[in-house]
Amino acid sequence: MIIPTFDDMLTAHERIRPYVHETPVLTSSFLNELTGANLFFKCENFQKAAAFKVRGASNAVFGLSDEQAARGVATHSSGNHALSLSYAAGRRGIPCHVVMPHTAPQAKKDAVIGYGGQITECEPSTTGREAVFAEVQERTGADFVHPYNDPRVIAGQGTCSRELIEQTGGLDAVIAPIGGGGMISGTCLTLSTLASETAIYAAEPEQADDAYRSFKAGRIIADDAPVTVADGLKVPLKDLTWHFVSSHVTDILTASEQEIIDAMRLIWARMKIVMEPSSAVPLATILKNKEVFAGKRVGVIITGGNVDLDKLPWMNS
Amino acid sequence: MIIPTFDDMLTAHERIRPYVHETPVLTSSFLNELTGANLFFKCENFQKAAAFKVRGASNAVFGLSDEQAARGVATHSSGNHALSLSYAAGRRGIPCHVVMPHTAPQAKKDAVIGYGGQITECEPSTTGREAVFAEVQERTGADFVHPYNDPRVIAGQGTCSRELIEQTGGLDAVIAPIGGGGMISGTCLTLSTLASETAIYAAEPEQADDAYRSFKAGRIIADDAPVTVADGLKVPLKDLTWHFVSSHVTDILTASEQEIIDAMRLIWARMKIVMEPSSAVPLATILKNKEVFAGKRVGVIITGGNVDLDKLPWMNS
Repeated sequence: MIIPTFDDMLTAHERIRPYVHETPVLTSSFLNELTGANLFFKCENFQKAAAFKVRGASNAVFGLSDEQAARGVATHSSGNHALSLSYAAGRRGIPCHVVMPHTAPQAKKDAVIGYGGQITECEPSTTGREAVFAEVQERTGADFVHPYNDPRVIAGQGTCSRELIEQTGGLDAVIAPIGGGGMISGTCLTLSTLASETAIYAAEPEQADDAYRSFKAGRIIADDAPVTVADGLKVPLKDLTWHFVSSHVTDILTASEQEIIDAMRLIWARMKIVMEPSSAVPLATILKNKEVFAGKRVGVIITGGNVDLDKLPWMNS
Repeated sequence: MIIPTFDDMLTAHERIRPYVHETPVLTSSFLNELTGANLFFKCENFQKAAAFKVRGASNAVFGLSDEQAARGVATHSSGNHALSLSYAAGRRGIPCHVVMPHTAPQAKKDAVIGYGGQITECEPSTTGREAVFAEVQERTGADFVHPYNDPRVIAGQGTCSRELIEQTGGLDAVIAPIGGGGMISGTCLTLSTLASETAIYAAEPEQADDAYRSFKAGRIIADDAPVTVADGLKVPLKDLTWHFVSSHVTDILTASEQEIIDAMRLIWARMKIVMEPSSAVPLATILKNKEVFAGKRVGVIITGGNVDLDKLPWMNS
């Protein structure tokens, strides 16, 4: 296990600057009044590929030697990491191989192709995916970029909270959603050196609360196929992200499906931004734990904006 | 008819600064590539009350003498002007009387009340509205602030394009939607002095193209109750706005309902912002008149963000 360092984050930041946005920080007097806190929303929904994951993906892609780069990169995510890796590979002009189940929605396949990725379809099972992924790697020699359990990816994600601290002039706390833990690990990496006084909170759906239970138990607990509207947060912690979560996170807070949907709608209605359900989990947990954040300056990471505009969750609830 | 001057706009800007945002200008490399133009979106959907109309409303409210202010303000809009006037009056701590048909959606009534307005209901007819409005004015002595045919309002709206020119460092063209013509008139007022080389285009729904037909005919043509998804653009020009439109506008371009809905969805999907149908009309007309804007630096005014999140227009189309 290679643990990325603060210097790795600084190097990543210089490396990826030409390919990613320094996203804006928005505030809402309505939401400040509602929560009693002073909230600073870091809008990674405005990021390239509409996801913070382009930071880590770009760091991995642009850190490759020319020789390795020529063989391309590969992953088996079907979410924001696949889009982000496709975007970054496209910017470097190298192949990006994405293994996806043939049952994945056409919209997701189209999005990956739109960003320049090449899809290889597999059966919708772990065995099927692993077999096809091994074949693709074997055939192409592509470098595997894991969605989160990769030191290059975590160093890249850490650039987000560096910007947030600089843009706000300092914070009492930062809160971000937790799935596999890539963003939270990057946040821990950066803040433990840059702003060690800043508390780090992770926010998780109750229905996919494996990180919460891991945190309480002191060891990784993985769930099998949790179901939540926050579809970016279904994956489990891995050794590298567990290292950061167990060392630096102050607490993990959870919210119900309805609380997540209500918070998402509230952000759309009051802040006028399009963001995905996963990004609403932090505000949902702040609203039900007001005493934790009252009177504090709190950074809230809006992790992405990739959402199906034809099927918004409050329309089913 | 009192025609507001460039100095009135400068005075308005100083007056309203404490109560309105200098809204951000966003760009999209995707939309630049799609249109062949260099687009700068002025995001008044992030404005207070989520509408540019708060600029004109604030100028009217904060320009009142203390004596007049104590009697409050009044209007009979049920759209963004009612919200904006309620917001501005609330900031000054004076009453805002809004006359609305009793048949208006509860959500609109709630929004006005949420911003501090006081609703007086009327019958849903012009006669009914005028009678009740006269009664309210008579009883309260409130100052009538027209949604657009008011020099104070137009001077206030003109502050938007002043910011836009400063934020972009100059533009070849500015395009905004046209309904009654308040925003376009403010834009003409400001740019004819500040940036007279900048062409001004107005964008209008085909199904409510009274400004287009007026422009071609050289006189005001008013429609009776046009039907369009761009519900902020149904009202006709009046003498003051006709003065500016007929003197300074380069052209008026129109788009169909489907083109407006498609452009709205495109902005939501690619720029990740929530904005209302009226605000999509400029992009819709740019997409069907690419040759007019190709290679040019074009300011696009996103006029507001008040939209029913339960009923998005592409879900019916």
